[in-house]
Amino acid sequence: MPLYIFAEKDIRQVTSVDDKALALIEEGFKKLANNEVTMPPILRVDIPENNGEVDVKTAYVKGLDKFALKISSGFFDNYKKGLPSLSGMMLLFSTETGVPQAVLQDNGYLTDVRTAMAGAMAAKYFAKQHIQKAGIIGTGTQARYQLRALCLVRKVNEVLVYGRHSERVEQYAQEMEKELGVNVKKAQSPAEVVREADTVITTTPAKEPIIKEEWLHPGLHITAMGSDAEDKNEIDPAVFGKVHVLACDSKKQVFRLGEHHHALDAGVINNNSPIVELGDVALGKQQGRTSESDITLCDLTGTGVQDTAIAVHAYDKLKKQNKGLLFSG
Amino acid sequence: MPLYIFAEKDIRQVTSVDDKALALIEEGFKKLANNEVTMPPILRVDIPENNGEVDVKTAYVKGLDKFALKISSGFFDNYKKGLPSLSGMMLLFSTETGVPQAVLQDNGYLTDVRTAMAGAMAAKYFAKQHIQKAGIIGTGTQARYQLRALCLVRKVNEVLVYGRHSERVEQYAQEMEKELGVNVKKAQSPAEVVREADTVITTTPAKEPIIKEEWLHPGLHITAMGSDAEDKNEIDPAVFGKVHVLACDSKKQVFRLGEHHHALDAGVINNNSPIVELGDVALGKQQGRTSESDITLCDLTGTGVQDTAIAVHAYDKLKKQNKGLLFSG
Repeated sequence: MPLYIFAEKDIRQVTSVDDKALALIEEGFKKLANNEVTMPPILRVDIPENNGEVDVKTAYVKGLDKFALKISSGFFDNYKKGLPSLSGMMLLFSTETGVPQAVLQDNGYLTDVRTAMAGAMAAKYFAKQHIQKAGIIGTGTQARYQLRALCLVRKVNEVLVYGRHSERVEQYAQEMEKELGVNVKKAQSPAEVVREADTVITTTPAKEPIIKEEWLHPGLHITAMGSDAEDKNEIDPAVFGKVHVLACDSKKQVFRLGEHHHALDAGVINNNSPIVELGDVALGKQQGRTSESDITLCDLTGTGVQDTAIAVHAYDKLKKQNKGLLFSG
Repeated sequence: MPLYIFAEKDIRQVTSVDDKALALIEEGFKKLANNEVTMPPILRVDIPENNGEVDVKTAYVKGLDKFALKISSGFFDNYKKGLPSLSGMMLLFSTETGVPQAVLQDNGYLTDVRTAMAGAMAAKYFAKQHIQKAGIIGTGTQARYQLRALCLVRKVNEVLVYGRHSERVEQYAQEMEKELGVNVKKAQSPAEVVREADTVITTTPAKEPIIKEEWLHPGLHITAMGSDAEDKNEIDPAVFGKVHVLACDSKKQVFRLGEHHHALDAGVINNNSPIVELGDVALGKQQGRTSESDITLCDLTGTGVQDTAIAVHAYDKLKKQNKGLLFSG
């Protein structure tokens, strides 16, 4: 069977953090909320000997002629070999025949974009309209993408960033100031970020909570996007007791892998606690922020529906531009 | 990252139903029994609108430098479009860095081989030493592969085959007689096959049992390889009450997806019933057939460890022969 293979450089040219990508991801979440998506639990393999983990996500979205299967891996000792920790690729299959259609060798790029777009949705529906100061915790790839995403839906002038490694913080500040025309200040602690910012985005692989409830203040919105596995945890469970609106990408997933799972274990929330899903808010079935003083929290674990939405779009654009290599076996 | 892509025709040249493949699969099952394998549950997507299903399997085997992820799909209306029902591919990733290494575009060929090799193991340890007559139920691809596999471990002179479509039975008989030099007779019913044969292999996607307990006789061995999903069922649960040795590829899987799952639901077996795994038998930790009169049953659902074992081997041979296309992005 013929199979298209697309390279990262071409994929980057047809997909970016923009309104189109946001619309695609919103549409995907709406279909998820409307039960038009089949999304099995994530398949995960841990390779502890090499400090590695591999996740496989997929979703079948009714109405799309293809579905994606995404493999993403994190091997956290790769830096010793001079390699990036994260890698990944997406595959596309026909929803009509099951036949493989394409390999998108994006090295995780499409994941970065679709993850950022869930962050954009979280900010769009839950952050205050006027943000005085945005806070970013973490200085990696998603710390960059999430700020780009935030700038897509809100006017941002000032950013406060915290990271554990000062040279990385410095580099982050320089890059973002140049790229986005924002003023980036360096915070001394997560507490400083949370206390001073209106909207905080956590982008770390923390396994111990870094956000404490005593730092919360009226109007604060937090997007926690770092936790996508049982053992990761950025938000202290006590925070959940002070938040007015709890939101997430997928209830099923956050109860298993996200911040909600730790709050559930701690007994701060239960299975019946009101938790809003992004898709329902985008459909207008549920409300986002209701007042300037609400404290809101959106927990993102990353869903297969985002992968399928972005991959199908990228494929269609790549095909139209005659990109890719056709491997006919 | 550079990625090798291998075509089915090349993969077929380096892998076949032979002693080497059998040794690889045995080795895989031994490691599984020794807890040297991490094998998460199968990820599955159903697309009922198109009578389709997609399974994703994987396993990390300690000591191997790569692990496979296999995607296989069955879309049972494909014949209307002149396409085969089954398709699939395998991917290989480094166990050291998580980086994708290769796409094996085998269209399900490696699955056919590794499935046959589990069948060969079942026959090797459970079938009588001297088979007067082998029975095959079904006339598809695995009906062919399973007979090839049986011939690898036992001398077979006469085969009795049953299928619902007489022209397919005829074609099967002609092909197998020519290829394997065996005498293939056509049975009028599954009952005839089971009553007359010493070793019976069921290779159907049946959703209603086709093997009944009243047909069993001393010395009979049955390998049931058709059932790999909750709703599939070839063996009547009552059969389990008459079998002396119950065996399987993976207890966890057969209790969820295999024939054992129906026997469990029917109350004929329970979670503590003695069930032997292929790996334990290969290691000598458990016994296979103990007497000429035992009735034995081996339930195969297909495991990720077989996929990793066969794919890593194929990759190494393909690389040595300078096959494949190097896609460097």
